Amino acid sequence: MKTLTTNLPELGQRARAAIRQLAVSSRRQRDTALLEIARRLEASGEVLTANAADVAQGRQDGLSAALLDRLTLTPKRIAAIAAGCRDVAALPDALGELIDGSQLPNGLRVSRRRVPIGVIAAIYESRPNVTIEISSLTLKTGNAVILRGGKETLRTNVVLGELVRAACEAAGLPADAVQLITDPDRALVEELLGMDDVIDLVIPRGGQGLQNLVRKFARMPVVYGGIGVCHLFVDAAADLNASLKVIHNAKTQAPSVCNALDTVLVHSAIAEAFIPRLVTMFKESGVRMLLDKRSMTLVPEALAANNELLASATADDFGREFLSLVFSVRVVDSLDEAIAHIAQYSTQHSDGILTNDHANAACFTAEVDSAVVYVNASTRFTDGGQLGLGAEVAISTQRMHARGPLGLRELTTYKWIVEGDYHVRA
Amino acid sequence: MKTLTTNLPELGQRARAAIRQLAVSSRRQRDTALLEIARRLEASGEVLTANAADVAQGRQDGLSAALLDRLTLTPKRIAAIAAGCRDVAALPDALGELIDGSQLPNGLRVSRRRVPIGVIAAIYESRPNVTIEISSLTLKTGNAVILRGGKETLRTNVVLGELVRAACEAAGLPADAVQLITDPDRALVEELLGMDDVIDLVIPRGGQGLQNLVRKFARMPVVYGGIGVCHLFVDAAADLNASLKVIHNAKTQAPSVCNALDTVLVHSAIAEAFIPRLVTMFKESGVRMLLDKRSMTLVPEALAANNELLASATADDFGREFLSLVFSVRVVDSLDEAIAHIAQYSTQHSDGILTNDHANAACFTAEVDSAVVYVNASTRFTDGGQLGLGAEVAISTQRMHARGPLGLRELTTYKWIVEGDYHVRA
Repeated sequence: MKTLTTNLPELGQRARAAIRQLAVSSRRQRDTALLEIARRLEASGEVLTANAADVAQGRQDGLSAALLDRLTLTPKRIAAIAAGCRDVAALPDALGELIDGSQLPNGLRVSRRRVPIGVIAAIYESRPNVTIEISSLTLKTGNAVILRGGKETLRTNVVLGELVRAACEAAGLPADAVQLITDPDRALVEELLGMDDVIDLVIPRGGQGLQNLVRKFARMPVVYGGIGVCHLFVDAAADLNASLKVIHNAKTQAPSVCNALDTVLVHSAIAEAFIPRLVTMFKESGVRMLLDKRSMTLVPEALAANNELLASATADDFGREFLSLVFSVRVVDSLDEAIAHIAQYSTQHSDGILTNDHANAACFTAEVDSAVVYVNASTRFTDGGQLGLGAEVAISTQRMHARGPLGLRELTTYKWIVEGDYHVRA
Repeated sequence: MKTLTTNLPELGQRARAAIRQLAVSSRRQRDTALLEIARRLEASGEVLTANAADVAQGRQDGLSAALLDRLTLTPKRIAAIAAGCRDVAALPDALGELIDGSQLPNGLRVSRRRVPIGVIAAIYESRPNVTIEISSLTLKTGNAVILRGGKETLRTNVVLGELVRAACEAAGLPADAVQLITDPDRALVEELLGMDDVIDLVIPRGGQGLQNLVRKFARMPVVYGGIGVCHLFVDAAADLNASLKVIHNAKTQAPSVCNALDTVLVHSAIAEAFIPRLVTMFKESGVRMLLDKRSMTLVPEALAANNELLASATADDFGREFLSLVFSVRVVDSLDEAIAHIAQYSTQHSDGILTNDHANAACFTAEVDSAVVYVNASTRFTDGGQLGLGAEVAISTQRMHARGPLGLRELTTYKWIVEGDYHVRA
């Protein structure tokens, strides 16, 4: 892609120019671009060819099977990505929406209208589908995006970037609405994070190392997300059968994602009945459990013997994001103790209570200060699609601008429009 | 105040402890604290005594008359500050407000409720009233605040801080809801800006130097604000008499604040008629005008002769925040040229068009991307009180979280509450 560059100031100026065109684009143009991306994805052979080269290189470089799987595209996966673009095109337009409006006593007419945020920089790791996901959501909301993907999928991303830019042009939008940094040099990321005159928002999608880098160097607003140490508290008044199902779902349905369960807190009043059933269930599922002292004493000898899935929890096993089929267990004596544990160890992503006691549920939702607080539901619902936003670009664990899933509205800001009759301030 | 400290980690831990208590405080407690602040302010003699000492020190240190005036408190000014606290107490409570709620097709009940942001750090300069303004707004919204005022008002701020903390305790709130950094060492500000584990938001209220410092060192979200390079464009279809009044108001009503006018753009079609009237009006008001070449040629000889208030604008006079009775003037040939000038030079604070042409007004409001965009009104309305928010803690010129005035709602965030019947994700 000859228009791609590692000259970041030039790339920044192109993005600034693009947002002026995007600001006056029509919904039809933006949706057409998304449908064009979908069509071209399904028609292109180049994406699979480039991806095969990335996978071959990754295999040669000794990447793990799990990582290789994450970066591999197949016709079926491409069809799913294309379907995602069509879904986003079908969502309501957030731009131009009137947030509120009123006439003040002095006759001034005041309203707030949604507008794009501007230039967004997205820094992410291996999976190439993220290139299309972020491009489609930023295009839908009239933002320009500067993408910096992982070096393991560079060939794939370059082809995807060309495809998206061509789709923009076909829809009458500036190709520079989507730009890619194609040089894997980390110094460019640091340079990018200093460009607060150009970039309005940075979205890092990756692990703690990436987040620390961004925290250190970013001079502009950042939405951090994606790190979830998630808790479920089984209250004394919980339905134990139903709780087992929720916990199983929260831990096993997609163990490598941020809304997967990490720690189960069990009220001591039901621990003796509940812990053996929990151990039995997860023994069958092959899930590893790290038990605190009290819960360990409640495991019957027969279940503990030769059970390699059981281990004693260390201090580090609380407040730890496992991202695999492992979780920790602690017995607590009260709702307050559960809330205090969550306050200490949670990343304020997704935490829940399982209980039939309405007062306890109300207390939990009032006092637990996580992006999403659950009563009697799996933490796996923390997802833009699941919570009714249609799509999401990330899950925010910070408090400003947006918490939890970032959907289309959260990719916009607003401006005040004040109309008068040559009004002056008294 | 013996509980004040320059040990920032300790101060941070106290603030974190305070927000857990504030989160479960009642509206009555928070409003009582505000009324107590007002009562104590009017009853206390210590504030004036401490302030007199600050003013005497400032005079000795050679501070300018304008600066000395800014840091001086009088019984009348204290009464106004107390009235401000009572006004904030009377405003509706933003906390607990249901933002939206719905039941999803699978039966999950999803809602979003307003909660405090958490710990806010406010860094500001001379005026001691800011200490009370920020404390009252953060208390009202259940946030804890760490204040770092200017060294010129340190004695006053220490007394005000003690007073606010005592008022909190009287209302059953933790005194540590409001803490003050009493050591003027700048190194403490840098340390504070690195405490992203403790501080959820930084609000710097001050000039470019402070903002640059924050941009360099802050690891947490920041709401920047307060720097306004404000434009008014006099369109070909403007009512010229009425436009003169709006421009006069925008420039002179409060020239030292961020929403004061800095640049007038005049459409060439009416420039010959308008510029002489503009010069005549501001000659009478003693306002200095920096004219571009085209507008200078339109000043009649009789008005230009011996008029020390007129000067040629240099390149630096556009995009400059004057904060005094000076502004720059440029003639443009079209609405597009006016919009392009604003895109280049505005700080996206407050910019407006004066016109009777609805199509031009609509184009201007669509394309000018400032926090507040005006049609036929003075830029001086960019103010939380004037725009119906009741109060404001700052005026944001960034795009994330909030643009323009930050009122009570903008000092909150939200959490999702998801309630189910032991729902699992399919």
